[in-house]
Amino acid sequence: MTGVGTLVIEDRPVPTPGAHEVLVEVAAVGVCGSDVHYYRHGRIGDFVVDEPMILGHELSGRITAVGDGVDPTRVGQRVAVEPQHPCRRCKQCTAGRYNLCPYMEFYATPPIDGAFCRYVVIDSEFAHPVPDSMSDEAAALLEPLSVAVTTMRKAHVAPGTSVLIAGAGPIGVICAQTARAFGAARIVVSDPLESRREAVLEFGATEVVDPMVDDVAALDPQVDAFIDASGAAPAVVSGIKAVGPAGYVVLVGMGSGDYPLPIGHIQNMEINVTGVFRYTDTWPAAIHLVTSGAVDLDGMVTGRYDLEHVGEALDSDTDPASLKSIVVPK
Amino acid sequence: MTGVGTLVIEDRPVPTPGAHEVLVEVAAVGVCGSDVHYYRHGRIGDFVVDEPMILGHELSGRITAVGDGVDPTRVGQRVAVEPQHPCRRCKQCTAGRYNLCPYMEFYATPPIDGAFCRYVVIDSEFAHPVPDSMSDEAAALLEPLSVAVTTMRKAHVAPGTSVLIAGAGPIGVICAQTARAFGAARIVVSDPLESRREAVLEFGATEVVDPMVDDVAALDPQVDAFIDASGAAPAVVSGIKAVGPAGYVVLVGMGSGDYPLPIGHIQNMEINVTGVFRYTDTWPAAIHLVTSGAVDLDGMVTGRYDLEHVGEALDSDTDPASLKSIVVPK
Amino acid sequence: MTGVGTLVIEDRPVPTPGAHEVLVEVAAVGVCGSDVHYYRHGRIGDFVVDEPMILGHELSGRITAVGDGVDPTRVGQRVAVEPQHPCRRCKQCTAGRYNLCPYMEFYATPPIDGAFCRYVVIDSEFAHPVPDSMSDEAAALLEPLSVAVTTMRKAHVAPGTSVLIAGAGPIGVICAQTARAFGAARIVVSDPLESRREAVLEFGATEVVDPMVDDVAALDPQVDAFIDASGAAPAVVSGIKAVGPAGYVVLVGMGSGDYPLPIGHIQNMEINVTGVFRYTDTWPAAIHLVTSGAVDLDGMVTGRYDLEHVGEALDSDTDPASLKSIVVPK
Amino acid sequence: MTGVGTLVIEDRPVPTPGAHEVLVEVAAVGVCGSDVHYYRHGRIGDFVVDEPMILGHELSGRITAVGDGVDPTRVGQRVAVEPQHPCRRCKQCTAGRYNLCPYMEFYATPPIDGAFCRYVVIDSEFAHPVPDSMSDEAAALLEPLSVAVTTMRKAHVAPGTSVLIAGAGPIGVICAQTARAFGAARIVVSDPLESRREAVLEFGATEVVDPMVDDVAALDPQVDAFIDASGAAPAVVSGIKAVGPAGYVVLVGMGSGDYPLPIGHIQNMEINVTGVFRYTDTWPAAIHLVTSGAVDLDGMVTGRYDLEHVGEALDSDTDPASLKSIVVPK
Repeated sequence: MTGVGTLVIEDRPVPTPGAHEVLVEVAAVGVCGSDVHYYRHGRIGDFVVDEPMILGHELSGRITAVGDGVDPTRVGQRVAVEPQHPCRRCKQCTAGRYNLCPYMEFYATPPIDGAFCRYVVIDSEFAHPVPDSMSDEAAALLEPLSVAVTTMRKAHVAPGTSVLIAGAGPIGVICAQTARAFGAARIVVSDPLESRREAVLEFGATEVVDPMVDDVAALDPQVDAFIDASGAAPAVVSGIKAVGPAGYVVLVGMGSGDYPLPIGHIQNMEINVTGVFRYTDTWPAAIHLVTSGAVDLDGMVTGRYDLEHVGEALDSDTDPASLKSIVVPK
Repeated sequence: MTGVGTLVIEDRPVPTPGAHEVLVEVAAVGVCGSDVHYYRHGRIGDFVVDEPMILGHELSGRITAVGDGVDPTRVGQRVAVEPQHPCRRCKQCTAGRYNLCPYMEFYATPPIDGAFCRYVVIDSEFAHPVPDSMSDEAAALLEPLSVAVTTMRKAHVAPGTSVLIAGAGPIGVICAQTARAFGAARIVVSDPLESRREAVLEFGATEVVDPMVDDVAALDPQVDAFIDASGAAPAVVSGIKAVGPAGYVVLVGMGSGDYPLPIGHIQNMEINVTGVFRYTDTWPAAIHLVTSGAVDLDGMVTGRYDLEHVGEALDSDTDPASLKSIVVPK
Repeated sequence: MTGVGTLVIEDRPVPTPGAHEVLVEVAAVGVCGSDVHYYRHGRIGDFVVDEPMILGHELSGRITAVGDGVDPTRVGQRVAVEPQHPCRRCKQCTAGRYNLCPYMEFYATPPIDGAFCRYVVIDSEFAHPVPDSMSDEAAALLEPLSVAVTTMRKAHVAPGTSVLIAGAGPIGVICAQTARAFGAARIVVSDPLESRREAVLEFGATEVVDPMVDDVAALDPQVDAFIDASGAAPAVVSGIKAVGPAGYVVLVGMGSGDYPLPIGHIQNMEINVTGVFRYTDTWPAAIHLVTSGAVDLDGMVTGRYDLEHVGEALDSDTDPASLKSIVVPK
Repeated sequence: MTGVGTLVIEDRPVPTPGAHEVLVEVAAVGVCGSDVHYYRHGRIGDFVVDEPMILGHELSGRITAVGDGVDPTRVGQRVAVEPQHPCRRCKQCTAGRYNLCPYMEFYATPPIDGAFCRYVVIDSEFAHPVPDSMSDEAAALLEPLSVAVTTMRKAHVAPGTSVLIAGAGPIGVICAQTARAFGAARIVVSDPLESRREAVLEFGATEVVDPMVDDVAALDPQVDAFIDASGAAPAVVSGIKAVGPAGYVVLVGMGSGDYPLPIGHIQNMEINVTGVFRYTDTWPAAIHLVTSGAVDLDGMVTGRYDLEHVGEALDSDTDPASLKSIVVPK
């Protein structure tokens, strides 16, 4: 990406893995809403693309070389990539919150290059082996599944929990599946699009509501947790109001700007509100969710593109029938 | 039970439900190891049966009358009974740990009568409605499932966790199923009996080991949590040693007396050891686990007895083919 | 209070304590901002005073009679009153969150009468004995101290923590003292009034800032926790922005209406936002904080009034030199 | 230390700090029980001294050189040293439990050299700046204070908590002080030596008991937490029995071998038992506890030795009047 709406394909040298790193030949890359947002707007909040940058951060591949200190027998291993490069030394890293490392280098977050390319390097610990039974595409989509796993942990979803999810896009669908896998008993998903509501019923939702018609805030009984995967202010406000005493609210969707929240309800019900920013220690759990059949990632893929057609992949979200697009950089 | 090994059937008046209580006509009662222990030994630790007492505390039934302050439309409702009667006022109760209430009246714990009878009363909040799709027997077995749910919470079992369970008796089997339902990826069960090891593979175990042959303490990699459902000292010791850094140990099985624990391993690995004593707020989760198909209780029932044959029900555990016996008091 | 701004003194019969209750002769009652708010506006959010109601809920006194089931030797005991009457049976109560009981009867929350009177009844467990060394006034102010204790628990304040508190009114001052007692190393208090900033430096603040002059959001380093005791939208917004990664925000001050919160900061920093609504299990801790000298409640009292002058007590907050007023109903 | 009971002084080259490391000129080193244990027995559990090793791991000093990537203006800074060198990459490190890193290099744990010497190197993040007001000796003793801080966190000590501590040696005394600083209301310390019981009353204990005379298990009311700083089996057993429902047990003292624990009490009371193995993120809190005056480390020092007299320092624990010895390597 050389500018807003502008993509070029360049030949660049294959990178060399440093100490504790591996070189990964990319097999599949998912298209994320953040990629689309950078592509269309050139920025997400304070993160601005002002130099050419490679997009893409949901990926799988195969190790083709290893750096110092890495077991050389890993060459050839199929891996899913956790696209983080934290400093490992700061207060956040030593506290186990490396996702919040202020020195983080994260794929496709300016100015760090991403994965719509042939080869990437990553810390060896963050190249997670996947079993042969898992497809390259599913392995790539362990990244958004990791977002969902983190979300369930923060929302305290466990067997018997009731959950409301706003938004039935890719993150909403993957959250619905993951909520079911964590044992949620009631999974209500709200989305104004009928086609999306119908689709999410196939992916774990136990009920769907149309927020244009029904008052989401009036859900009865109130839910234990609300997960926003829409980024839409009205959805967040009504969703928070649907949460009962001491419940949890987790904001996953990135919205545009600030807006009034129902502060009285948060106070009177002692509701806990937080957000999700990446993940820590999620790939092993995510791999199990897929291999056990609890979460279906392959079934979410609705389009495949090569490097020449990344632009079309990025624009595929305008098609209501599209759920998740994959780039195969061959 | 009028003495060790002695049972009689008596006619007693049907009890009257007090305020906030309901009268339940008993439909099915599970036989628990603690019932068997009282029957054979007359005591469990400091709890001594020195007057006639009705055994049985795993039960379901139908509401036939309600006391003051209870919705009268509940008459006729099928319910699973949470057999606790806490004071609701002490420090433990107000802290949400009513299971530890020092003033607890618990079915079939001396001198409180249990449920091998026709009618019982219980707090209306602890008569949990069950759906028609659930059998009386499964509804009764929500009680041991509640023990397992509490155990998983204390063992911090979640998607991806690895668990070792010692003992493949009824509690071990139900824990294996519940661990799977909570998302555990690796569920190792140890038991010296081959028939039990084979059975538990049908109920969620991913691996079984014979502790007479294999060194359980040497499991590699170490597990995240160890659950003892055996009460056997060697199993507890080797199980604790199998747990990795910051892992959890939950002691469910009741053993006989104290024995040396691997204290150095607990310290050097900062392992967290605790026990389970009843449960709080588990029936709704347990009901969901059964109705969703994640846990199979009906499949565990291997024998049914009427009130005249409670003695045989209590002795059925000597048959290696027996897993769980049910008394139907008609 | 018979209407907005209208108070009358009435003779009413002395109430009789029911089972598990005690009768308390009131010795001292603190004036709370919520009392003032009802007095001036007739409502707080959805709670509306539409019939005559006695205000006041921060109180101490002496037990003069006991109901059934209460130790009769408690007559004569000096007590601080926890002014809650939860149902003890609902899901919130049995989960240890009796403060969120939907059936709560709370002093001076419509339509429940409060404590600007001679006698009140309360559950015996909520009449907390206080030592002779504690004054009646300090014993009454254990109630706002309980709010502060709850706040520190929710803000995860512990030795070494850094805290920002917005507002140096009675709750801000008591929170500053309590933060110090919980071990906070850095306690920044913001208030636009110079006299209040000076006062709070005597009560635990290690720094004060004038939000009209300094940019609170730019505090460096960021704080671990932000506590709002102001209810003012700009204070809440800048306070949240001052919190670092994975920090805590606790909203204590009641504001007027909803307003935009810095959602991007909450998400990117995974900040945890919640509110405080009453308290559970705080009196024993609060009593220790006072008797150990860690918190000074007597020093906060700036005015004393009898029942004839409750109106003046309620209006005393308009005097900038007033911090906390006490009503002595003799 | 060249063998059991054998010490020599050697000239060795001054080490060079690597990347992210600093060189520290040692100012003061505390003598720890583990140093004494290695000196007398040549081993602690599985850790065996089979080559010459420098003892000592409680230290302060001054930075005299820095490695690559470290701010050069740190030269000259007075620091307390956190004597850990974790890998920062393994599962434990990325989970925030670097104290449990299996690749840990820890001072004076075979075969890693310790600090009874003139110069050491340490990761720059683990050289914690201390204020001028803090003595070198107090700065060295931040290490055992860090053990106590970790202990209080694991024992959930907070304002109002009641605590039993077994053992009034250096760790018991520092735990008593730290418990008080964390707000504990009741701090019972048991020790068979009268002189130690008297001393600990000066350092935070609110009560002392002689376990040879009094039945520690019968403490009434039961305590919220028990901390073992004795390593003595009878003290651990009676201490656990003194803990009430859902309480905490933290084993700090290292004992000899395994012994029976009161398993029935742990189960019936759902007590949580764990151990302490080093610390994470404690120096900032410990520094605040000392600078605020809440913990007095200087007052605990009863002997000072130079490098020629390290043997005497190690033997000083045989003097009942000795509490904490310091080596000053000049």
